Amino acid sequence: MSLESYMNQIGQQARAASRLLAKASTQQKNMALLAMADALETARPRLIEENLKDMQNGKEKGLDAAMLDRLLLNDARIDGMIEGLKQVATLPDPIGEITGMEYLPSGIQRGQMRVPLGVIGIIYESRPNVTIDAASLCLKSGNSTILRGGSEAFYSNQAIALAISEGLSAAGLPPEAVQVINTTDREAVGQLITMPEYVDVIVPRGGKSLIERISKDARVPVIKHLDGNCHVYVDNEADEAKALKIVLNAKTRRYGVCNAMESLLIHKEVVNQQLPVLASALEEKGVELVGCVQSQAVVSSISPATEEDWYTEYHAPKLSVKVVDNMDEAIAHINKYGSHHTDAIVSQDYTKARAFMTEVDSASVMVNASTAFADGFEYGFGAEIGISTDKIHARGPVGLLGLTSQKYIVLGDGHTRDN
Amino acid sequence: MSLESYMNQIGQQARAASRLLAKASTQQKNMALLAMADALETARPRLIEENLKDMQNGKEKGLDAAMLDRLLLNDARIDGMIEGLKQVATLPDPIGEITGMEYLPSGIQRGQMRVPLGVIGIIYESRPNVTIDAASLCLKSGNSTILRGGSEAFYSNQAIALAISEGLSAAGLPPEAVQVINTTDREAVGQLITMPEYVDVIVPRGGKSLIERISKDARVPVIKHLDGNCHVYVDNEADEAKALKIVLNAKTRRYGVCNAMESLLIHKEVVNQQLPVLASALEEKGVELVGCVQSQAVVSSISPATEEDWYTEYHAPKLSVKVVDNMDEAIAHINKYGSHHTDAIVSQDYTKARAFMTEVDSASVMVNASTAFADGFEYGFGAEIGISTDKIHARGPVGLLGLTSQKYIVLGDGHTRDN
Repeated sequence: MSLESYMNQIGQQARAASRLLAKASTQQKNMALLAMADALETARPRLIEENLKDMQNGKEKGLDAAMLDRLLLNDARIDGMIEGLKQVATLPDPIGEITGMEYLPSGIQRGQMRVPLGVIGIIYESRPNVTIDAASLCLKSGNSTILRGGSEAFYSNQAIALAISEGLSAAGLPPEAVQVINTTDREAVGQLITMPEYVDVIVPRGGKSLIERISKDARVPVIKHLDGNCHVYVDNEADEAKALKIVLNAKTRRYGVCNAMESLLIHKEVVNQQLPVLASALEEKGVELVGCVQSQAVVSSISPATEEDWYTEYHAPKLSVKVVDNMDEAIAHINKYGSHHTDAIVSQDYTKARAFMTEVDSASVMVNASTAFADGFEYGFGAEIGISTDKIHARGPVGLLGLTSQKYIVLGDGHTRDN
Repeated sequence: MSLESYMNQIGQQARAASRLLAKASTQQKNMALLAMADALETARPRLIEENLKDMQNGKEKGLDAAMLDRLLLNDARIDGMIEGLKQVATLPDPIGEITGMEYLPSGIQRGQMRVPLGVIGIIYESRPNVTIDAASLCLKSGNSTILRGGSEAFYSNQAIALAISEGLSAAGLPPEAVQVINTTDREAVGQLITMPEYVDVIVPRGGKSLIERISKDARVPVIKHLDGNCHVYVDNEADEAKALKIVLNAKTRRYGVCNAMESLLIHKEVVNQQLPVLASALEEKGVELVGCVQSQAVVSSISPATEEDWYTEYHAPKLSVKVVDNMDEAIAHINKYGSHHTDAIVSQDYTKARAFMTEVDSASVMVNASTAFADGFEYGFGAEIGISTDKIHARGPVGLLGLTSQKYIVLGDGHTRDN
């Protein structure tokens, strides 16, 4: 079969399965999730065996230690996947909720019903556990899924796919509700993102270059984030102790995450007082500082920042520092150089807190809290499929609701429209 | 200035203006709308004069009568634009609404704030009144607008643009909040839809070929609908009188609208009884019928339908008719051949009504009501910028809410994340 026919078949099967999933009961979906957990448990030896093939291939191909670590499936990680499935089964089902039913002057009643998006394509890189994470959230929200993992995790993903389809069948749901593409041909991705008749939305999970490529070529809506260039602005009305806690947490909790602070803005009136304290606490943790001329004048260990630094998500123990004249300059800087992901103000001033929340154009805006909270679990969604920096549809951490749509429903009793 | 520099300038100005609009008060936006109404009133003679140029050019270019009619600005249509501005001023302002603030286990409070999308690009064809309709809804929802009208309405649109910017200035808002592109170069559209740094969403209004072209080439999200291939399914449990009223209204109220019925599905058990009544009522109104073999056996005046007919939005006094064995077949037909716009069931059966609402994958699903109700005014939104058949972001009639986004806001008091 040609790749095109294969992808079309995958698409048609996904669409057909989505019709059945859309009317599956919560109980049936939960049963499938738990049956998938059982199937993973049973498949444990096979999973580790198949993963070994990927690990050996990866070593032969010269993957670095970090990539090999992401690729590895061991008992703890399989436990994690099983636990994840059980957790998703406990989440409330968003599907079918009816809201806003109102009688209108014409006599009809109009409201909205929450429904699945339909078919979701997930494109991801080396970590095989994404197969389970993504499939479980899509299934719970009534969507069928087409998964395309990295070629380096091919055998692991196929083994996981088998367990998934066993679980689906055990619960009486179509095994095509979750399909893992069984070819490593890169053209399969090109097909997947240009089949709007079969795929309703694409969620790419991986490095920036992967996501940029997909966004550029997709003919299907993409839920994505490219960058997490997050800021903390320390205002002249900031409480010093809170500023220190928040700055340290936002930068040093973890360096490789998208909600880490990459740029610190500080009001000129408090820079002499507070920047030395903040800088030495950060440097003690091993954070390298670059900054504007004014910040260098206060803390001599700060190296000069280039224009490019203000745009940069370091993903590393490095931070850019800028002194600003006032909050408006901080907001303008964030809106210009930031990535519209997550930005925070530290201030005790009520009016400024209110204005910062309104004017900063980001998916999450925080007052006196660490940017690290921008996360589906911390926001109480139980799980997340990713974080969106897009403005349409899902913005910020995307949980089950982001995988749904609302259609209008109208109830009448023979009503017709007059004019 | 090159077209590229010109479009970049337009984009930068729109982005800068959007920052000011995002924090403009409701009162200020309403004042601008009313000042725009006054400015249109004052400009009335100039509008008619400039429109005359477009009309003359159109006649010379050989535009047909329907297009010339859409192009025409007369006193009644200017009254309509002025009235529209005043109505939008009375609509509730969606911006700034905060919902769902919840305390989470970490101690932070998390909710969502409704904010403008930012910059909206509107691409439309001949009708100059769209300039006002679109600009007023975008302004009320705090967005700046870049408008690109049809070249045939160039002079009319420029004259309207001048009145708009007078109104904005009078209310102390930046005139760049609404910009009308002042070139007829078609490449301007190509630029507009590929500037994600300056434009947040594109709303194309016009024929299917325009919208298809834009969707294909856009690098910016598009809110659109391509087709309105709407169905009414008359169930074997339908009330006959209601079925007749609804079928007639859905088909014959207006033929050129996207919420008109284009296909009638009827249950085999009631086809002998009801189809002759429905067919003769429709034919009396001048509707041409094509249909499946079974429908032809019952009503001899029905001509044979081709496979293509089931996909077709006639926009004309023509209807396809299909006899189905049961509701499941009707739903499968609608989901396969329909355009996911608006579909209705006529039935007194509770269980079927419930299943139809759940399983039909359309932006609006109706029970015992005419498809003609799928409309922003009828749904109580006060106005609409269009109807979306997309599943993500706005689905169905799009009012002010569809032009907004929700960002997360987090309140803490020095909170940091532990793990």
